[in-house]
Amino acid sequence: MTRSLVVSIDAMGGDHGPSTTIPGLALAVQNSKDNLTFIIHGNEGGLAPELARHPSLAGRFEIRHTDKVIASDEKPANAVRRGRGSSMWSAVECVKTGEAHAAVSCGNTGALMAISLLILRMSVDVERPPLVVSWPGRKGVSTVLDMGANIECDAERLVEFAILGEAFHRAAHGVARPTVGVLNIGSEDVKGHDEARKAHAILKSGKFDIDYRGFVEGDDLSKNTVDVVVTDGFTGNVALKTAEGTASYIIEELRAALTSTLGAKLGALLARPALRIFRDKMILPPSAPFLGLNGLVVKCHGGADARGFGQSIGLAIDLAKSDFASEIERNMTRLTAAMEAAPVDEAEELSGDA
Amino acid sequence: MTRSLVVSIDAMGGDHGPSTTIPGLALAVQNSKDNLTFIIHGNEGGLAPELARHPSLAGRFEIRHTDKVIASDEKPANAVRRGRGSSMWSAVECVKTGEAHAAVSCGNTGALMAISLLILRMSVDVERPPLVVSWPGRKGVSTVLDMGANIECDAERLVEFAILGEAFHRAAHGVARPTVGVLNIGSEDVKGHDEARKAHAILKSGKFDIDYRGFVEGDDLSKNTVDVVVTDGFTGNVALKTAEGTASYIIEELRAALTSTLGAKLGALLARPALRIFRDKMILPPSAPFLGLNGLVVKCHGGADARGFGQSIGLAIDLAKSDFASEIERNMTRLTAAMEAAPVDEAEELSGDA
Repeated sequence: MTRSLVVSIDAMGGDHGPSTTIPGLALAVQNSKDNLTFIIHGNEGGLAPELARHPSLAGRFEIRHTDKVIASDEKPANAVRRGRGSSMWSAVECVKTGEAHAAVSCGNTGALMAISLLILRMSVDVERPPLVVSWPGRKGVSTVLDMGANIECDAERLVEFAILGEAFHRAAHGVARPTVGVLNIGSEDVKGHDEARKAHAILKSGKFDIDYRGFVEGDDLSKNTVDVVVTDGFTGNVALKTAEGTASYIIEELRAALTSTLGAKLGALLARPALRIFRDKMILPPSAPFLGLNGLVVKCHGGADARGFGQSIGLAIDLAKSDFASEIERNMTRLTAAMEAAPVDEAEELSGDA
Repeated sequence: MTRSLVVSIDAMGGDHGPSTTIPGLALAVQNSKDNLTFIIHGNEGGLAPELARHPSLAGRFEIRHTDKVIASDEKPANAVRRGRGSSMWSAVECVKTGEAHAAVSCGNTGALMAISLLILRMSVDVERPPLVVSWPGRKGVSTVLDMGANIECDAERLVEFAILGEAFHRAAHGVARPTVGVLNIGSEDVKGHDEARKAHAILKSGKFDIDYRGFVEGDDLSKNTVDVVVTDGFTGNVALKTAEGTASYIIEELRAALTSTLGAKLGALLARPALRIFRDKMILPPSAPFLGLNGLVVKCHGGADARGFGQSIGLAIDLAKSDFASEIERNMTRLTAAMEAAPVDEAEELSGDA
């Protein structure tokens, strides 16, 4: 089905600016069946030569000129105070005004989050959009959140993450009924801390349109035991950085081993094509949406190349085309009803005491 | 320096029982310069033939016969209620009576912890001995605790972990002045949750004989950025299982890659010796002490082989020979004084607000 979709682009963000973002647009057009057009925010003089190099983009864009760019080390508070009129700010504003279906930026994460929050506001009770990661593992990827935006989370916040993550996973990965788990340190009902147990009890109550499977543990992330794993931002951030640290330590040791002797070097040469496929599997996807806003904003990794930026646009399109927002709204209504009917007390009863 | 050391052995625990534990004793004797003797708890009929196979053990042991064994799936509460007289119980009791300098078991972790706690009691305020892991990484190993025994920890508990872990790291790894960090999600003073920030402020106050280096993050574990990393049991358990899951996923993918094509298979064959060294580096040490008890108990992994059990005895000996207990006592006295002089308020002030 061909649809007309408008994506608002912060063309100046990231480590490489227009030399990466513009070729990314061309790749997105090439890979999409939809009728894509772009509102491109950035310095016209810098953008024009890049755009001229990609004839496939002709007639598909409108440039909104600005000289103002949010620096990669700008504090979020400063970005909010002084960011108005920057390429990032204007890109997000187009979602608010309804001119674009989604915005994509590879700029400073904290600034993008603060600006998005200010312009679009949250549609759920969580304070900030949880950071989402697509966690690679044995069966593909799991959606894991929050990776650090909301440090301390009560049970209701964790349930909201489940609602957001489930809708996201369906839209982004085409899984009709994603399975959901709560990250904990054991699988029995009595394990873990209060908030995880209460969230477990609420999700287990069956009042949501969610395929909830119970507690999962740290090693279930790489096993992709469930499609969506929810946790507070503190635990999620530690888990993500621990996994990244472990992976890069192992890859380094492997590299050292494979260059340690002549035999190993020869062996590595022979195995190179297979090792390259192995290495590519270990790379985290370059983009993630800010969930729970009144509008779509996708953050692309600052160091992403054109292919990565193109994939981020693809993700924004998948989300824009899905029922994402209305699915979240339906389950949020159910959560409110469930909490009003039998609030935390019942949850506590259900979950028992350690 | 040759010393006479007595180690109390639960010979029946673990997946393999005496066929692993007894050869482990022989290896410990072979690797130690000290005058080792053992009090061996278990079934005399089962132990005698194994002991006969190791002449180096002659004259070095005394058997305390018992038919009672704690099952590997016994609930800790049951172990405490019904465990009296078992090989595990008697092994720990010898530390309490002063007959042995330390006890070693590769039995059921929960049961061993519950029994040790009941018999020896804690010497610090933490409720339960924190679980300690020796985390392998670029510079060797870091001592990381708590890996799951104490789920929710306030700032004082985290500081106690720092005291226990620091003394342990010195005794076990011969590092004169181990560096210490608190696990968090950023390095600035204002990052993370309240208890981590308060613990940071207390440790930063300089009132302890501890080389405190500040906050570390998940990826610092494999980097061995500091020698000792402290965190609550929930976060620690998630981090450990996430790392284990990540490592085993990567190793599996690597194996799949290296058998995927003929070239890769040939390459893997050539690189085999180097890959074996690589694989051995990824294995976690087989044993860890229960810290903070009035007496030494070392838990060895249930699946450990004779070499692993021998290493656990080596660890028990290193701890028994060190100033471990008195070092902890000195820093605990400082903690009490520090908290009385300027309790949490000052810590809060120091740590600021996010």
